Amino acid sequence: MAFEDDAAALIGAAHVLTGADMAAYATDSTGTYVSDPLCVLRPGTTDEVSALLRLANDSATPVVPVSGNTGVSGGTFAAGAAMLSLERLNRIRDIRDAARIAVVEAGVIVETLQNAAAERGLLFPVSFGAQGSARIGGILSTNAGGSNVLRYGNTRAQVLGVEVVLADGRVMDLMTDLHKDNSGYDLRDLVIGAEGTLGIITAAVVKLVPAPARHATAILALRDLPAALTLLGRLQAASAGAVEAFEYMPRSYVTRHLEIAEGARAPFDASYDVNVLVELGGPAELAETFETELESAFESGEILDAVIAQSEAQRREMWTRREAAAEVAFSKAPVVATDIALPLDRVDSFFPAVRTALAEIDADFEDTSVAHLGDGNIHYVVYPTRDEPGLKDRLMQTVEKIATDMGGTFSAEHGVGLSKRPAMTRHKDPVALEVMRAIKVALDPKGILNPGKVIPD
Amino acid sequence: MAFEDDAAALIGAAHVLTGADMAAYATDSTGTYVSDPLCVLRPGTTDEVSALLRLANDSATPVVPVSGNTGVSGGTFAAGAAMLSLERLNRIRDIRDAARIAVVEAGVIVETLQNAAAERGLLFPVSFGAQGSARIGGILSTNAGGSNVLRYGNTRAQVLGVEVVLADGRVMDLMTDLHKDNSGYDLRDLVIGAEGTLGIITAAVVKLVPAPARHATAILALRDLPAALTLLGRLQAASAGAVEAFEYMPRSYVTRHLEIAEGARAPFDASYDVNVLVELGGPAELAETFETELESAFESGEILDAVIAQSEAQRREMWTRREAAAEVAFSKAPVVATDIALPLDRVDSFFPAVRTALAEIDADFEDTSVAHLGDGNIHYVVYPTRDEPGLKDRLMQTVEKIATDMGGTFSAEHGVGLSKRPAMTRHKDPVALEVMRAIKVALDPKGILNPGKVIPD
Repeated sequence: MAFEDDAAALIGAAHVLTGADMAAYATDSTGTYVSDPLCVLRPGTTDEVSALLRLANDSATPVVPVSGNTGVSGGTFAAGAAMLSLERLNRIRDIRDAARIAVVEAGVIVETLQNAAAERGLLFPVSFGAQGSARIGGILSTNAGGSNVLRYGNTRAQVLGVEVVLADGRVMDLMTDLHKDNSGYDLRDLVIGAEGTLGIITAAVVKLVPAPARHATAILALRDLPAALTLLGRLQAASAGAVEAFEYMPRSYVTRHLEIAEGARAPFDASYDVNVLVELGGPAELAETFETELESAFESGEILDAVIAQSEAQRREMWTRREAAAEVAFSKAPVVATDIALPLDRVDSFFPAVRTALAEIDADFEDTSVAHLGDGNIHYVVYPTRDEPGLKDRLMQTVEKIATDMGGTFSAEHGVGLSKRPAMTRHKDPVALEVMRAIKVALDPKGILNPGKVIPD
Repeated sequence: MAFEDDAAALIGAAHVLTGADMAAYATDSTGTYVSDPLCVLRPGTTDEVSALLRLANDSATPVVPVSGNTGVSGGTFAAGAAMLSLERLNRIRDIRDAARIAVVEAGVIVETLQNAAAERGLLFPVSFGAQGSARIGGILSTNAGGSNVLRYGNTRAQVLGVEVVLADGRVMDLMTDLHKDNSGYDLRDLVIGAEGTLGIITAAVVKLVPAPARHATAILALRDLPAALTLLGRLQAASAGAVEAFEYMPRSYVTRHLEIAEGARAPFDASYDVNVLVELGGPAELAETFETELESAFESGEILDAVIAQSEAQRREMWTRREAAAEVAFSKAPVVATDIALPLDRVDSFFPAVRTALAEIDADFEDTSVAHLGDGNIHYVVYPTRDEPGLKDRLMQTVEKIATDMGGTFSAEHGVGLSKRPAMTRHKDPVALEVMRAIKVALDPKGILNPGKVIPD
């Protein structure tokens, strides 16, 4: 009997998709990775995930987990594998206001959790452009970042407990709402960020934080990047760390956004090189602190222009521009998208260094970027003049090498997936790679879970 | 040739101790675990640690790493094994003020790092009684907690990068000072808290935080535990999370401390059931917020008595009482010391429940405790009437069962070592135990690293 038939016997034929029904799953959000899955499985419970993995393991059928399918690194590419969609595991099992935790299944949409928290005056602080369709399983599996990492940390920092189905179907119960628990190895953090290669996360206990009483939001034009970083330091000190986001957009980003986004308006009358969306969250008094600091930076010439949001609508408009990052980046082809992070004191020197090096390879390349500047995380995007795989690889490798030579990383928040696997070989400590392979073999001896991802052969 | 001779050829005979020279290493800080090591190795560099582990692995010689030897769970018990002391790897390799990081070797004493940070207006926020002799390797290997977890998190939360020597001598370089880096599995967090069973941590990159401009410190007598937790919530809200410590000491703790500590003074003229040492850290204005909240709690009858520290000497005296916890707990024998954590809303019901259950086993037992109340972490200490191993085991098991039945853990911050290994069997998810064993075998196939610790057979 075929795998699909066995799977249908376990979870019902209606939840085993084949042929054209798989189209929405087979193409990733960037359109770069188009795969040809064996079938798409849509289990509705952890027990069903367990039964499916037991079946897959017994028959050595590769399984690629997918939740919101909003990734940009090819992590859900599934040639010949069964895709296991977590979309039906979409219950918020519990929210406990006093304990400030939510117990959520892997298929819950990030924005759904954000809204449920907001109704109780709480905040689930992982926030990024795709939050309306990304799901909990995906943000845990990639340890997603986003715009609020500066204040609240990555997704990992929000997680207290996880429920994981292992390759052979065993269910590992690490669900806890304790903030302090040292009972053996930290298996929770091992599966977070493993992109489904060690097990499939089916549920999690996540922390919620008190929602800030108000936000102070502005778009700033700054003299240069060092001035931006100086201002960030001063805002952090003056507000006791209340800066929630500090997002850099160069002139090229703002220009391109105006071209592609219907109804978009320019942030300023003039056009500037260094634009930053800054947002603080806290008590009402914060607005005054914020304006005082901005005025002082304006007088000292660090700020060239500024618009402070006077309404939620104005705040939304500023965020809409920032959250269009994926559309802006992929609005032109061919494209080489990167996800590097640098020590903060190397950010300013990165740009001239990388441009000099890229010009030697492709003299007339263009670029843009958008950065979580407070984290040193830059999505640097290169537009080569020709669509040649070899050229694109050389440009990508050049960006990654300059970043790692500066003490940075080639993989900050989007996951390794397929696209950064070659960089793992080039830049990751070889002993660390050996240890990853040893753990992979120990937990998934048949190699059925998301094969070919994260770890190079 | 004997192992000791081979080791001496690698690191010099002066650094291979045997016989009586091993006495200081062979007994743990509680005096409970007295072992008979094969020898004590004192390497001076990561390369020497690597060479020693290669030798040990080739000869299947068990190795027990030890840094400050201040643990209380038997994690450094070393019957017949070579103890590998990290005390000579004691350099602070680098401190970068602007990046707020320190690069430290495993043998650096915690207080040495705290002092080096303080000289630069920075804080290394892991703080606990034994910090004057505990070393970095030990606090990473146990993911130590302490009194400031409420604000800054456990040791794990302070670590950006680690350098680890694996069982066969390979050196894994995960040293990074990036806050955002997702390049493969989270091996850093796997070795943190693994108590030396997966590798020996030789160095780390740790975060430093801005030192608070001032502290507001007080010892409070409260009506009851719920009143204490209510006050904690209000202080957190009023200070935007500036509560650094909230430490509970019952009447029995204060009384016993007065009996054993020379020159100690009572905190109040009267004696109270619920005493709390509270400390906030932040700008000077914080003192006013603090006093306003305390006055309001006094008027509402939640606070019965309070002394606010008026000088650093008074603050020190309050902390000296709290930091005598180990001396207080082990001042009487026989003793059963525990390290549980509970959801905050279960703390109050824990005490009557556990006392009723213990009285059924040993009617005239006595107890005391000291708790990081804000974390729900209670060091509940039982003094049985008779020194019988079977009785002590039953009392320990009763405390741990009541804690885990309430959604708590049997192991909060002291590590599993030997003493909590039986509880791992009783309370840890069996699949999680299987996964731990699989990882242990994958990374240390001969089982030479700290054998018999953490994971039950």
